[in-house]
Amino acid sequence: MSLTNHQILLASRPQGEATVDNFKLVATPVPSAEQLADGAVLVRHHFLSLDPYMRGRMNESKSYAQPQPLDSVMLGGTVGEVVASKHARFAVGDKVLGMGGWQEYSIVDANERGALHKVDTTHIPLAAYLGAVGMPGVTGWYGLVKIINPKAGETVVVSAASGAVGGVVGQLAKARGCRVVGVAGGADKCRYVVDELGFDACIDYKARPDMRSFYAALKEATPNGIDGYFENVGGMILDAVLLRMNAFGRIALCGMIAGYNGEPTPMQNPALILINRLKVEGFIVSEHPEVWPDATKELGTMVATGQLKFRESVAQGIASAPEAFLGLLKGKNFGKQLVQLI
Amino acid sequence: MSLTNHQILLASRPQGEATVDNFKLVATPVPSAEQLADGAVLVRHHFLSLDPYMRGRMNESKSYAQPQPLDSVMLGGTVGEVVASKHARFAVGDKVLGMGGWQEYSIVDANERGALHKVDTTHIPLAAYLGAVGMPGVTGWYGLVKIINPKAGETVVVSAASGAVGGVVGQLAKARGCRVVGVAGGADKCRYVVDELGFDACIDYKARPDMRSFYAALKEATPNGIDGYFENVGGMILDAVLLRMNAFGRIALCGMIAGYNGEPTPMQNPALILINRLKVEGFIVSEHPEVWPDATKELGTMVATGQLKFRESVAQGIASAPEAFLGLLKGKNFGKQLVQLI
Repeated sequence: MSLTNHQILLASRPQGEATVDNFKLVATPVPSAEQLADGAVLVRHHFLSLDPYMRGRMNESKSYAQPQPLDSVMLGGTVGEVVASKHARFAVGDKVLGMGGWQEYSIVDANERGALHKVDTTHIPLAAYLGAVGMPGVTGWYGLVKIINPKAGETVVVSAASGAVGGVVGQLAKARGCRVVGVAGGADKCRYVVDELGFDACIDYKARPDMRSFYAALKEATPNGIDGYFENVGGMILDAVLLRMNAFGRIALCGMIAGYNGEPTPMQNPALILINRLKVEGFIVSEHPEVWPDATKELGTMVATGQLKFRESVAQGIASAPEAFLGLLKGKNFGKQLVQLI
Repeated sequence: MSLTNHQILLASRPQGEATVDNFKLVATPVPSAEQLADGAVLVRHHFLSLDPYMRGRMNESKSYAQPQPLDSVMLGGTVGEVVASKHARFAVGDKVLGMGGWQEYSIVDANERGALHKVDTTHIPLAAYLGAVGMPGVTGWYGLVKIINPKAGETVVVSAASGAVGGVVGQLAKARGCRVVGVAGGADKCRYVVDELGFDACIDYKARPDMRSFYAALKEATPNGIDGYFENVGGMILDAVLLRMNAFGRIALCGMIAGYNGEPTPMQNPALILINRLKVEGFIVSEHPEVWPDATKELGTMVATGQLKFRESVAQGIASAPEAFLGLLKGKNFGKQLVQLI
């Protein structure tokens, strides 16, 4: 009996906001073990990662990555288990991390450098390799350690603070002796950020939707100004933070969710970058593979010892991926957004 | 017979655009040599430097420097000659560089570190110490060498390209094997930038005042995109440049003349910083005294050997300083703006 692989394809490019109609669910047969080419590994996915960067790839316009091709499986990180292997380094039962895409199974050419990584689930849960110890965690680590590079006593602000990246940034900054202020949407998320993740304060931007009230809260939460900002959002929050930046502050631009749908999100006063001699730097973690060993060592140790906390929003079944992804773009998730596939 | 020192004071803070009414000309007696305190030096100024940063100091608002106090002599760089000295290191006749301000004479406490520098005019004209071999030159050197750090073959764009800073940036970038494109206001300035300073191209923003036509010209002048941008202006030019930046481009923010009068000059699409993984860094040269030896060595050698060209706009007499300064803010100068005081 042959297995069926359910897949989500990109059916059309969004006109403005993405909708479920941009996606299409299809079913294809899974090849048998005998059909695998030499060096190939068949992986059954346990979890699919949903991440904001995927929205950028749905557009046709120039971006840091090639646009996601139409009518092909949506790209995405996955963790799972080897169910058949024609590669000496991978055995049935191995837990692996890869870019399997929005589908239940994938066939990976394991000879391709970096295509498939064995992971150790003795002390770290499998799904964490998509979150705190995976791409989001390393993203947070890179922006904080390599761009913001905070000193003890400095103030670091993080937007999307309850998210997979933001939560890591704040906890890493706390571990370095900083005052850490989060920005998140909703009282629940803010409570979580302060009570569970240990941030010093968190501002609910939904309760303060205008510049004046948001800035007032930010000012109160950052009595010594802001030395480092980890940006996941853009728009009004960035404008407000710029007004509180101290001289020689550093801003790591990791995401600009506010602008993914094509609406203009200007920076109101870029002269502040000059006035305060700021450094503003955009980055994409996949371009810095050299930091993975250092980053995952720190992150893995902190997760294994319970020092690094995280939360997951888990949608069930591949068919739920589009709705879960659209919810992520609107901040409906709480922590790392995953789709469980088994 | 005692000498008279004519001075320009800041009479009031500008409301929006600065005007001549913000300045006041006064006359005070110059102390005699006997009246000097120990360690003091009396300098007769030959040239006063006028620079865009002075506009920022006229505002009361938080800036990188203390606001210029009301009813005090406008701050500014000067070169001149020692006419009386009670300091062992300075003798009558020495040529010196200092921050003498908008006046004909100054008394300097030469024991104050960095207050007064002797300069060698054997191969370098005295006024060049206010321009290509002075603060503007070192400003250009710092932004180009320390922030943009261009490689041979890269494309560097410079706004205010015919100005004291921009002209240096472009010539230093050419010396490093870059393609260099200037932006300047008017056909005369553009011709000068290309024909005399040796830039590869120059775009006249006055002839292309809207985004569409300016961008079209920029695209034509930068067929391989832009790797480094030295920003002296802000506003529409910055927006257009951002659209042409290559991945991992560097932007040195040196000035934002467009915003000095308080009008909003938003950056239309800051997400481009992320999409193209740019580094945008504001700086103020006075905070990097460590680069002066290296910078002035390269700049001085290039001036002395005729490799670094520059032009000066020279207003005559201290009373002409306010008009000359207001003209500078509007781009009426051509090259380094000076006021000759003897």
